[in-house]
Amino acid sequence: MSAKAAIVVGAGPGLGSALCRRFAQGGLAVAAARRQGDKAQPLAEEIGGRAYSCDAGKQDDVETLFTRVERELGTPELVVFNPGGFQRAGILEMNAEQVTAHWRDGCLGGFHVGQAAAAAMNSQGRGTIIFTGATASLRGGAGFANLAMPKFGLRALAQAMARELWPQGIHVAHTIIDGQIRNESRGPQYSEAERGRDALLHPEAIAEAYWDLHQQPRNAWTHELDLRPWVETF
Amino acid sequence: MSAKAAIVVGAGPGLGSALCRRFAQGGLAVAAARRQGDKAQPLAEEIGGRAYSCDAGKQDDVETLFTRVERELGTPELVVFNPGGFQRAGILEMNAEQVTAHWRDGCLGGFHVGQAAAAAMNSQGRGTIIFTGATASLRGGAGFANLAMPKFGLRALAQAMARELWPQGIHVAHTIIDGQIRNESRGPQYSEAERGRDALLHPEAIAEAYWDLHQQPRNAWTHELDLRPWVETF
Amino acid sequence: MSAKAAIVVGAGPGLGSALCRRFAQGGLAVAAARRQGDKAQPLAEEIGGRAYSCDAGKQDDVETLFTRVERELGTPELVVFNPGGFQRAGILEMNAEQVTAHWRDGCLGGFHVGQAAAAAMNSQGRGTIIFTGATASLRGGAGFANLAMPKFGLRALAQAMARELWPQGIHVAHTIIDGQIRNESRGPQYSEAERGRDALLHPEAIAEAYWDLHQQPRNAWTHELDLRPWVETF
Amino acid sequence: MSAKAAIVVGAGPGLGSALCRRFAQGGLAVAAARRQGDKAQPLAEEIGGRAYSCDAGKQDDVETLFTRVERELGTPELVVFNPGGFQRAGILEMNAEQVTAHWRDGCLGGFHVGQAAAAAMNSQGRGTIIFTGATASLRGGAGFANLAMPKFGLRALAQAMARELWPQGIHVAHTIIDGQIRNESRGPQYSEAERGRDALLHPEAIAEAYWDLHQQPRNAWTHELDLRPWVETF
Repeated sequence: MSAKAAIVVGAGPGLGSALCRRFAQGGLAVAAARRQGDKAQPLAEEIGGRAYSCDAGKQDDVETLFTRVERELGTPELVVFNPGGFQRAGILEMNAEQVTAHWRDGCLGGFHVGQAAAAAMNSQGRGTIIFTGATASLRGGAGFANLAMPKFGLRALAQAMARELWPQGIHVAHTIIDGQIRNESRGPQYSEAERGRDALLHPEAIAEAYWDLHQQPRNAWTHELDLRPWVETF
Repeated sequence: MSAKAAIVVGAGPGLGSALCRRFAQGGLAVAAARRQGDKAQPLAEEIGGRAYSCDAGKQDDVETLFTRVERELGTPELVVFNPGGFQRAGILEMNAEQVTAHWRDGCLGGFHVGQAAAAAMNSQGRGTIIFTGATASLRGGAGFANLAMPKFGLRALAQAMARELWPQGIHVAHTIIDGQIRNESRGPQYSEAERGRDALLHPEAIAEAYWDLHQQPRNAWTHELDLRPWVETF
Repeated sequence: MSAKAAIVVGAGPGLGSALCRRFAQGGLAVAAARRQGDKAQPLAEEIGGRAYSCDAGKQDDVETLFTRVERELGTPELVVFNPGGFQRAGILEMNAEQVTAHWRDGCLGGFHVGQAAAAAMNSQGRGTIIFTGATASLRGGAGFANLAMPKFGLRALAQAMARELWPQGIHVAHTIIDGQIRNESRGPQYSEAERGRDALLHPEAIAEAYWDLHQQPRNAWTHELDLRPWVETF
Repeated sequence: MSAKAAIVVGAGPGLGSALCRRFAQGGLAVAAARRQGDKAQPLAEEIGGRAYSCDAGKQDDVETLFTRVERELGTPELVVFNPGGFQRAGILEMNAEQVTAHWRDGCLGGFHVGQAAAAAMNSQGRGTIIFTGATASLRGGAGFANLAMPKFGLRALAQAMARELWPQGIHVAHTIIDGQIRNESRGPQYSEAERGRDALLHPEAIAEAYWDLHQQPRNAWTHELDLRPWVETF
């Protein structure tokens, strides 16, 4: 295969799907990866890409994913690590298993994906790797340790990778998604009808910002940007 | 006049000119303002805009600028405050006059321009205001107090304005320009032939990022982003 | 004179007075400087120091202060710049005169004092200079531009001076005072009876932290620390 | 037992030992915990405390430690999590096992210790918990991902715990140790004879700063402070 490929790890129904659509629209062969790949099948068919099962917390899964994508779609030139949700808990309610699971999903998974992407892009000396962060990447709020611990760690990884890989031609970036993403299927709290027009982040708008990052020429790269709705307090 | 206008305060030969060109290409009627407006005349003619003399440190100048632009070009929907250079000095070499002059040019001027832009955009409930920052917006290095004092202050202004004006529909953003901008006319240090391919920020690439900020829908606005060449250490 | 002296610029009734008392208790000859020096006279008598009139925004005042202190008390080895209050205002309510006045008092004054302190300490290769910051040193909140602009700038100055002067043996530090300081005379909002026990910063506790900074050996200096009451949200 | 106890998890030969000595000097019954507790035995005897074996990455170890300390020494009112070293590696040289091991030692261990400390202190509504951070807590440098990932995560934990526990009367703090700590036994790089007077952090000076944190009254608590030698660039 010689097409240019994109890999989205975390191709869930919200942002993940929007990223896949935008990258396909940009001409890339898109690998939509999520824990249960069959759930990404309709999306893959819609955009002419492929669905893959991948638990980013498992290195074998990630290695298999990259090997298959390289064979079935082409060399990845745009890779996004887009991890999912978390559970709020006070310090005495938390337990080590949850902490570890959240970290595996939200931070170690980022290492697995980031390292595999770096290895794939290294020989060509170009490519873009984007890590999705959140408000909790910058601030550990009360009750948010389960989210902030992996998110801070993921930001550390993104910085270390950027400082090492930019001079190799690989653009590593990190986003701060500050606010809730519109997702009618998740209930009224995520619905614009309920929350007000443009009061929630639109996945398509975030995807556009990711695409812009990928389009930046290497003489003017962004490492970190924040995205939030106009009415979000910050 | 009823065209949509853009105002660039600090329309010098490097980034300022590139911003004017990009905004004109985007369909806006561009006001290219700098201390000596006649120097911006060729640029204004090239892009079908207008040149204005404006010392941003003087409130009268800024008010006159906005009044004239509104009459001669249209309502500003994109305003950039893009201040110029500085002189490096140790704490004992600095003097209060320089400190004050740098602050007037780099920070008070931002207030004048930001306030005038807010006033002009307020009635329509939309528009974009961008302040140009630098590495020194985040870090006061030894010898850089003359630059960092106004740059930190400008960032404070941008944040306060964003938190106040975003909910009014006005997008206030701040950029961290981290690295030197290509400008062959300033000497070999600013020349790509000398420094290496893409080792300097291209003004056109920065201008594209500013344009992207202006294009963002209000459900996903960025407040701050950094821009630097791939080989810049950070 | 050969005693060791301390200078507090901004020796008002709250923190300023507490700093003077703590430094006197530590054995330093204390210069209590404020705009109207006569108001500091009772304090000066209480602690065996001297009161001085000084508008930190005026370089002449600051130079006169340092000259007189050196003659009347001794060489300053601890200097604190502790500026006063501000007025909250939205961007359209602010005016350039206020912005400039706040900056002169809160930031330029810091330069005047910092430079004079550096000059006085430089020959001995030791001394401590502390700048008082606030929440607004790190965050420009809506309505707080008048405070945040000078506070951010002052932090920039503190950083640049630290990076230049630490290797000369001069300890430059910056504090983030996050919360209101107890001051019964300012009204119920500043009274512990009203707000709850320990819900307000005690000036004496802040002064202790400043004294600790001064006592640090040069192998383990702190540049920045925050201070806030246990119940303050942050 | 009814004495006031302190627990230092990571009571190695450098900072850890100095913390134990300072806390004992302050009148606390000190538990010196490290992976191989027998190595802390001489220290424990010197200061009249007790040595414990504890691998902080194992929750059982930490729970046993706290149970035993409460029975053998008293209720802990000062707990420090002071994790050890790391290995520098580029992104392609790293492996998931190392990443996980570093995180378990440097971050999950902090959760185990922090949670146990919170549980022990919660009923009394007072106590101090300090997490030792580093330069890598704020910046992910090239080659430092193995250190920065857990350090960023630990800082997130410290923030979340502070915001939750301060209003319960428990002082949670985080330090940025920026520079190498003097330790003649580790070789010339850590020796003052080699590096210059006061060019390395003295463990005793850091310990004093930790003690000061513990002494702060709750009306003026510090959450984060940095410590570095006067000649360290930052």
